[in-house]
Amino acid sequence: MSKRTEQAAGPRTAGPETTGATPATPQTSLELSRRRLLGTVGAAGAAGLVVGGAGAAIGVSATEPEQDAAKSVTTIGSTEVAFRPARARHQAGITTPLQATGHLVAFDLAPGAGRKEAAALLRRWSRTAEELMAGRAPAADTGVALDAGPSSLTVTFGFGHSFFGRTGLTARRPVQLDPLPDFSADALDPKRSNGDLWVQIGADDALVAFHALRALQKDAADSARLRWQMNGFNRTPGATARPMTARNLMGQLDGTNNPKPSDKDFDERIFVGRDAGQEWMRGGSYAVVRRIRMLLDDWEKRSRHEQERVIGRRKDDGAPLTGGSETTPMRLDATGPDGLPVIPSNAHARIAAPESNQGAAMLRRPFSFHDGYREDGAPDAGLLFVCWQADPLRAFTQVQRKLDRGDALSPFLRHEASGLFAVPPAAEPGGYVGRPLLEG
Amino acid sequence: MSKRTEQAAGPRTAGPETTGATPATPQTSLELSRRRLLGTVGAAGAAGLVVGGAGAAIGVSATEPEQDAAKSVTTIGSTEVAFRPARARHQAGITTPLQATGHLVAFDLAPGAGRKEAAALLRRWSRTAEELMAGRAPAADTGVALDAGPSSLTVTFGFGHSFFGRTGLTARRPVQLDPLPDFSADALDPKRSNGDLWVQIGADDALVAFHALRALQKDAADSARLRWQMNGFNRTPGATARPMTARNLMGQLDGTNNPKPSDKDFDERIFVGRDAGQEWMRGGSYAVVRRIRMLLDDWEKRSRHEQERVIGRRKDDGAPLTGGSETTPMRLDATGPDGLPVIPSNAHARIAAPESNQGAAMLRRPFSFHDGYREDGAPDAGLLFVCWQADPLRAFTQVQRKLDRGDALSPFLRHEASGLFAVPPAAEPGGYVGRPLLEG
Ligand code: HEM
Ligand code: HEM
Repeated sequence: MSKRTEQAAGPRTAGPETTGATPATPQTSLELSRRRLLGTVGAAGAAGLVVGGAGAAIGVSATEPEQDAAKSVTTIGSTEVAFRPARARHQAGITTPLQATGHLVAFDLAPGAGRKEAAALLRRWSRTAEELMAGRAPAADTGVALDAGPSSLTVTFGFGHSFFGRTGLTARRPVQLDPLPDFSADALDPKRSNGDLWVQIGADDALVAFHALRALQKDAADSARLRWQMNGFNRTPGATARPMTARNLMGQLDGTNNPKPSDKDFDERIFVGRDAGQEWMRGGSYAVVRRIRMLLDDWEKRSRHEQERVIGRRKDDGAPLTGGSETTPMRLDATGPDGLPVIPSNAHARIAAPESNQGAAMLRRPFSFHDGYREDGAPDAGLLFVCWQADPLRAFTQVQRKLDRGDALSPFLRHEASGLFAVPPAAEPGGYVGRPLLEG
Repeated sequence: MSKRTEQAAGPRTAGPETTGATPATPQTSLELSRRRLLGTVGAAGAAGLVVGGAGAAIGVSATEPEQDAAKSVTTIGSTEVAFRPARARHQAGITTPLQATGHLVAFDLAPGAGRKEAAALLRRWSRTAEELMAGRAPAADTGVALDAGPSSLTVTFGFGHSFFGRTGLTARRPVQLDPLPDFSADALDPKRSNGDLWVQIGADDALVAFHALRALQKDAADSARLRWQMNGFNRTPGATARPMTARNLMGQLDGTNNPKPSDKDFDERIFVGRDAGQEWMRGGSYAVVRRIRMLLDDWEKRSRHEQERVIGRRKDDGAPLTGGSETTPMRLDATGPDGLPVIPSNAHARIAAPESNQGAAMLRRPFSFHDGYREDGAPDAGLLFVCWQADPLRAFTQVQRKLDRGDALSPFLRHEASGLFAVPPAAEPGGYVGRPLLEG
C-alpha cells in the first residue's frame, strides 16, 4: 500500500497546484507518510510493483496463475491519507487532492441529545474515520468495502451554527459562523442547507465512499439524524494522460488560480490562526458549501467564444484571454484594439480574483454533481461548491457579494443550498475531532 | 493509449469471469483491438511506459519538468473499447468489463417523429458513439471530457416495445419484446420504466460518462425526448489489489456464477441466433433493466450468518456455503448434521441457479445506484440490475418468477422500475446501429 503523494494524487498540473487540493510543499506532503508505500516496495521490490502494473496494462491472460497481491498493487486502491496528519494541524480532506467520489452529509442532533451525546458521537466518528481511512473495517461491518484499499478516503467533520445552541456552547461559537448574508440570486432550500454537524467524505472508489457513509450513519445511531446528503464526483485519477486541473460540468478547467500550499500566506488565509478568537478552532478552517445548479441547456447554446468571455479564460487549456498558458497570470489591465479590456469587466475570474477583493482568497475544493433530470427536463447538475478559508466573511462572502452583483457567470447558475461549518483541527493522539471544544 | 484487455479491465477474478462482463476467450478479447496500445509502447518504449507509471506511484516532485505524455500514459484513461468489434457481432457494453460509472437512459420519439426520424437519429447516435468511444470530441463540443482518454467508454443502443408502433414496424417486432409479466413484489413506476429507445453508457471516468450523456441528448434534438435517466457506479479499476468480482451495496460479491464467454453455449444463451425469428436481431441480445432498491436498513441489521444464508454463499470470499473458494461449484444437494440443506432451500443463489431453472442463464451486468435518501430516511440505493440474454422469457422471466415466489432475498428488495429492450448487433462498417431494421 502506498500513501498518497503529490503525483499519485490524480489529475494535477505540473505547475502550480490547480485545485488547492494539492499538497506540494514539504509540510503538506509530509502529512502523507510514505511508510506503507515503502513497505510495499520493500516487499515486492520496485520491479515487482512495476511489472504488476505493466502486466495489467498489456493484458496478461486471465488464465495465468494469480499474481502475488503485492505485485499487482495499484495506487488507486492502496493510497492512504492519514487521519492524524504528521505535521499539519488541520483535518484531511482540505488540502487532499480531489477524489473521484464525494458525499456531503449534514446531521442534526436528535431531540434530547446535547453536549454529552455530541462528544460521544464525535469520539465514535473519529475512531471509525481513522479505521476506514487506514483501510480497516469497523466492527459489524457491511462488507461493502472489503477487498478495496483505502482508496484515498478522507472523512472531515464540521460544526454548524445551530450546533452550539444545542450543546449549550453558544459562548464558544466563533463569530465566523454568523449566518451568511442573503444574496440576490439565492434560491436556497432550507431542508438541504445548514445543519448541526457536517461530514465530508471523499474517496477514489464509490463503494469505499458509500461504505464510509453508511458506517458513519450507523455511528450516529440515536444521537443524530441525517438532515441532508449530496453525492458528487470528480475525474478518476489516471483518466487523463498527465496530471491536470479538474474540469467542471461546464467544461472549464476549475481550480487553476487556487491559492497554493507553497504560497507564503497560504496557511494564514486558509487556516485559523492564533488571534482568531476561539482557541479550539486554531489550525482548523471554515467550509462554505453551496449546491450550485448549472443551467446547462442555456450554457451549452453559447459559442465557445462567448463562454470564454464569461470566465475570462480559454476553455481548452485554461489560459487567460490575455495569453500564455494555464499558469500565466491574468493581465487584468490589458485592453484590445477596441480599447476594451481583453478580460471583460464582468468576467468571473476577474471579479473573483484576489486583486478585485482586497486580497480575499479561498481554497475551492468542489465536487461536480448530477442527480438526474428535473421535471422541466433540465439536468439537475452542477457544482457542489466547497471552499475553505480562515475567515468566510473576508473570503467567500466578500467574493460572492461581488459575483452576485455583476458576474457574467451568474445567469447560468442557481444557488440552491448553503451551509457554513466550523471545521476544527485534526484529532490529537488519543483524542477526537472537536474534543477541545466539547470537553474543554 | 492501450485498448482494454482482460486484465486491464479492473476488478476480475483470475478464475472464471465474475461479472459476465469479462471477455476472456480469444474471440471476445480480439474484439478489443490492441492497435493503440502497441502504438504507445512503440513510441515511448515499454520501459518508458513502465517508468511513467512507477514515477506517478512513487511521487515524482511536482516541479520536475513535465513528463512526455506518452510516458505517463495510464490504463484507466487510455483504455478504448471498439464501437465496431473486430470479431463479435454484438455491440460493446455487454461483455465489456464493468465500468466505474454508468448512465441508463430512455428516450421516447417526439410527437410526429417516425421511422425516418428514428433512422436519422440512430445514424447520428452511432457516429457520436463511435467518436466518443475513440476518445474524440464531437462537433460543437461541451469540452467536459477534454484531456481525458476514452476511459473504456461504451455506448449501447436498444429498442423498446413501443418503438415499433411509433415507427410502423410492428410486423418486425420480436416476440421476445412482449411485455414482462407482473411479479407479485413489483412496485413499478411507469414514468421510470420502458421507453421507445434505450441507451446504456458506461465509462471509468464520471466526466467522460456525463459528457457522452449530454452529447447523445443533444443529438436527440427534436426527434426524441428523454423519458428517464438513472446513474450507477461500480468499483474503480485498481481499487482492489488484484482483479476481483464486484461487490454490490449489500456487500456481496455479485457476478460470481455468471455464464462465461468461454462456456460452450455462451453465445447461444446470450446472443440471438439464426432461428430466433427476426433476422435484424441476429447477433444482438435482449436487455432486462430493473431498478431494484435495497432495504439496507433492514439488511444491515441481520447477522453475517443470516445474510449468508439468504444468498447461499459466504460474504467475505463468495464461496458457496458448501465450501471451497469463490469458483467452487455449489453443492445444492449437500445436507448438514441436522439433515437440512447446507445451502438453504430459499437461498437466492439456489433459486436463481440454472440447475433450478431448466438451464436458464443470463449475463448479469449491473451498476449500483445511490440517489441519496428518501423522505422516510431510508437510503434510495440498490442495484440497477441489467441482464442480457437471447430469450428473456426463458431467462429473466423464468428466474424472476421463482425468485418472486420464495427467494430469501426478496424481502430486502423493491423492484421500482423495469424495462425490456431489443439491443441489435453492432453497426456494420458504414452503417449504424439498427439500420437493418430501419432501412431493411
Ligand atoms: C458553479 C459555479 C462556479 C463555476 C462553474 C466557477 C468556475 C470558475 C472558473 C472556470 C474559474 C477560472 C479557473 C480557476 O482559477 O479556477 C473560477 C475562478 C474562481 N472562482 Fe469560480 N466558479 C463558480 C462559483 C464560484 C463561487 C460561488 C465563488 C466564490 C464566491 C468562486 C470563486 C472563484 C475564485 C476566487 C476564482 C479564482 C479567481 C482568480 O484568482 O483568478 N467561484 N471559477
Ligand atoms: C438487488 C437484487 C439482487 C442482488 C443483491 C443479487 C445478488 C446475488 C448474489 C450475491 C449472487 C451470488 C453470486 C453470483 O453468482 O453472482 C447472485 C446470483 C444470481 N442471481 Fe442475483 N441478485 C439480485 C437480483 C437478481 C435478479 C432480479 C435475478 C434474475 C431474475 C438474479 C439472478 C441471479 C442469478 C441467475 C444468479 C446466479 C445463480 C447461480 O448460477 O449460482 N438476481 N445474486
